[in-house]
Amino acid sequence: MRIARFSIDGNVAFGAVEGEPSGPNGTDGLVLDIIKGVPFAEFELSGTKVPLDKVRLLPPVLPSKVVAIGRNYAEHAAELGNEPPASPWAFFKPSTSVVGPGDPIVYPSFSSEVHHEAELAVVISRLCHQVPRERVKDVILGYTCANDITARDVQRAEKQWARAKGFDSSCPLGPWIETDLDLAAASDLAITATVNGELRQAGRTGQMIHPIEDLIVSVTEAMTLLPGDVLLTGTPAGVGPLLPGDEVAVTIEGIGTLTNKVISRG
Amino acid sequence: MRIARFSIDGNVAFGAVEGEPSGPNGTDGLVLDIIKGVPFAEFELSGTKVPLDKVRLLPPVLPSKVVAIGRNYAEHAAELGNEPPASPWAFFKPSTSVVGPGDPIVYPSFSSEVHHEAELAVVISRLCHQVPRERVKDVILGYTCANDITARDVQRAEKQWARAKGFDSSCPLGPWIETDLDLAAASDLAITATVNGELRQAGRTGQMIHPIEDLIVSVTEAMTLLPGDVLLTGTPAGVGPLLPGDEVAVTIEGIGTLTNKVISRG
Repeated sequence: MRIARFSIDGNVAFGAVEGEPSGPNGTDGLVLDIIKGVPFAEFELSGTKVPLDKVRLLPPVLPSKVVAIGRNYAEHAAELGNEPPASPWAFFKPSTSVVGPGDPIVYPSFSSEVHHEAELAVVISRLCHQVPRERVKDVILGYTCANDITARDVQRAEKQWARAKGFDSSCPLGPWIETDLDLAAASDLAITATVNGELRQAGRTGQMIHPIEDLIVSVTEAMTLLPGDVLLTGTPAGVGPLLPGDEVAVTIEGIGTLTNKVISRG
Repeated sequence: MRIARFSIDGNVAFGAVEGEPSGPNGTDGLVLDIIKGVPFAEFELSGTKVPLDKVRLLPPVLPSKVVAIGRNYAEHAAELGNEPPASPWAFFKPSTSVVGPGDPIVYPSFSSEVHHEAELAVVISRLCHQVPRERVKDVILGYTCANDITARDVQRAEKQWARAKGFDSSCPLGPWIETDLDLAAASDLAITATVNGELRQAGRTGQMIHPIEDLIVSVTEAMTLLPGDVLLTGTPAGVGPLLPGDEVAVTIEGIGTLTNKVISRG
């Protein structure tokens, strides 16, 4: 099932996406069957359906925190002149950095080198802590696309990445959560980023140095994850600059495409 | 005014603390006048009073995020062999790391070198973004004590500090928010940490390399802060190890004392 979150007439709801994506935006002909309640527990479809192009898609979850992993693809570490780390390096992106599909990425005032980073995002289904490897599959609701927007110049200057990777609109998520992928499938997906239609990043999730299971074991060894929290799993090689006016699209096989436009601060 | 957050008979409320701290726990004779509503807007005291030692104090706020600053006291940077940074280095501690006064600090399983770091915490009063220097005073509700508990070995190994400084119970806050300090007063307070009654850290908030105004300008240049969000302002020299059984107390002049006991994971 693909679970989207959306607003219509001022109300916010989750819905199951029905139909096959088509058309220039990948949304033609799609319909949302409104979910009764929230997808973090047992839920039912209401049978009330709305065309997807009549609603505004929101970030598919509102995470209390996004935990992200640095340098988790060897070629990407190398392209920035870094060694891949022996254990996963975790950092946070705050809830205030999250935006949804189609939302603008606002070019920050304090950077002149903003990069895209296409990433597979894991959405957590339940409160969990110290998850053993064999239980990792039980804490995952599904997967979505993420763009770990990064002020590369600030990242170099400040060493800790809260400003460089935590600014407002630096965490586009979407377009929806795909819940039908199991861990094995999620660990072997094509992932790309395009800018204005040109291919910039291309990799496979199987190239992760530390696979999804290891990341969740490592993160939850330290901290409790809450329903709707999100884990970003690192970016493949090919990161590069974005400028106001650019349209950046992250596509993950079996999930969908997350498209955002970069705008200048007004 | 000192604003505490507490639970009594299963209900959670804010209250104004009346009386002068005394006794071994610094709480003898204190009374809470229950606040109608929340302290992030106009509020009234209810006149309904409860003795402070009859309630359980909670973290004085539940922040959506805690933004913390690394190496903001020169002597502390030097004691760890680091250069003080030219601009503030910001990192996050997640909401799941926050505990209140008297709550246990649970020694994490993945570290064998856990340190205390006494810090002045600034509590944000209102949604704010790109705050100019002259408006910083308008976004501060007040000040409390914080202990930026750090797994020093993990911090060295992982470079990004999400696990080292973001584990559950790594962010004690309290005992209450002092709202009567202005920025000038908050920038010249004695701050200490004791472990089992022995003095370990002693400094003054005036020793900050980047003062409070600069930190809020720098952080909000990048990201929106929400009511109740917390800024930790760095720790003075004297950080050192904690072991299960230790009692660590952070005292800040004009605010109060935040005491927590370290326990083993059960």
